[in-house]
Amino acid sequence: MKPCIQAIAFDAYGTLFDVHSVITLCSRKFPGEGAELSKLWRAKQLEYTWLRSLMGQYEDFWAVTESALIFACHSLSLACPTEIRRELMSSYLHLDTFPEVNSALGKLSQYKLGILSNGSPKMLAAVVANTGLKGVFTDVISAEEVKIYKSSPRVYGLASQHMGVPDDAIAFVSSNFWDIAGAKCFGLWTCWVNRGNLPEDDLGVRPDVTVDTLDGLVTVLGATPLP
Amino acid sequence: MKPCIQAIAFDAYGTLFDVHSVITLCSRKFPGEGAELSKLWRAKQLEYTWLRSLMGQYEDFWAVTESALIFACHSLSLACPTEIRRELMSSYLHLDTFPEVNSALGKLSQYKLGILSNGSPKMLAAVVANTGLKGVFTDVISAEEVKIYKSSPRVYGLASQHMGVPDDAIAFVSSNFWDIAGAKCFGLWTCWVNRGNLPEDDLGVRPDVTVDTLDGLVTVLGATPLP
Repeated sequence: MKPCIQAIAFDAYGTLFDVHSVITLCSRKFPGEGAELSKLWRAKQLEYTWLRSLMGQYEDFWAVTESALIFACHSLSLACPTEIRRELMSSYLHLDTFPEVNSALGKLSQYKLGILSNGSPKMLAAVVANTGLKGVFTDVISAEEVKIYKSSPRVYGLASQHMGVPDDAIAFVSSNFWDIAGAKCFGLWTCWVNRGNLPEDDLGVRPDVTVDTLDGLVTVLGATPLP
Repeated sequence: MKPCIQAIAFDAYGTLFDVHSVITLCSRKFPGEGAELSKLWRAKQLEYTWLRSLMGQYEDFWAVTESALIFACHSLSLACPTEIRRELMSSYLHLDTFPEVNSALGKLSQYKLGILSNGSPKMLAAVVANTGLKGVFTDVISAEEVKIYKSSPRVYGLASQHMGVPDDAIAFVSSNFWDIAGAKCFGLWTCWVNRGNLPEDDLGVRPDVTVDTLDGLVTVLGATPLP
């Protein structure tokens, strides 16, 4: 059943913004090791957010991301001088949107649109500005406000607080299954953008809908008719 | 400075008990894919404990371990009929101890010895009985009691409650760095058994001591003189 959605909260990294450029830069800086490095970097970035949240030891997402990069380089015995580290980190501020994002967001303009991300406010402001999406979102919400990361329910609770609509009128959209699981457990309507054609994790909950790209979300929620 | 330790709480899997037999069985059942399967299985097992803890959706460790196995098989496009799944799961109940464990525990008998693990009570009871260590531990403590997993401080708090000595008189011993980080943040004295010669994670804390095997712990804490 199509829910009575008034607002849509999007995850940022991997959902709206393609981290492919991070991977490309890893490969350029460390030929032959780039794919392994970016995979381990991402895995550790997530692991550190979960562990720090469980331990009650919040550290902002920029610092967590940099710690994860340093560990990944150590682990693969790659020397990563400060200059290269800065360049790799900075690629997080200059991501591209996925090809369909701009047109899909345009077609969903009858909804309030927001971002709900682990990213720090500075990181999110930079990537939103650099992709020209500044005017599109009424709210760019960071987990930093509650000093804990997804999949804590406290993060998903920020959407209704900021967007001014009740939880059951919010669609949460993410390409990360575990993020969908957190939002679904909290009580949001969820759309999994399964860009990588991955199997579902077994975390006791399932997304309300699964789509390949944001175009699928437009189909489900209905596009704004052209004027 | 050597602390005034009265009790030692050991992590189970990877610390006392060698999960190598799980890996061996994976390789036997899925030739050429065993290493990748056991790696992904373990990674997902941990990921599910952290995510379920953050979401407040505890499920016992047996179920989490089985869910992780099912996902790992799907993810690698491996057919895993119920019979093979049961066999793989059952290998968790029949692990060996690492070679030095029995003698090291014998040399630490002036301390109260316990296990503090994510494992369910049934899983722990089975592996302790099967390795002949039943009489060695005064307490076999499962995270199941607080329905949340490590690295939550609530799990580490169980050690003093069960072992009857204050937190600052407990040594916590684990081969998992993230587990050490959780225990250290909680306030226990920690010994990282770095069996794999891995780099330290950057989670804002460091172990009190790092050793290669439990023999190093015996050296640090002092062996019981022979009668």
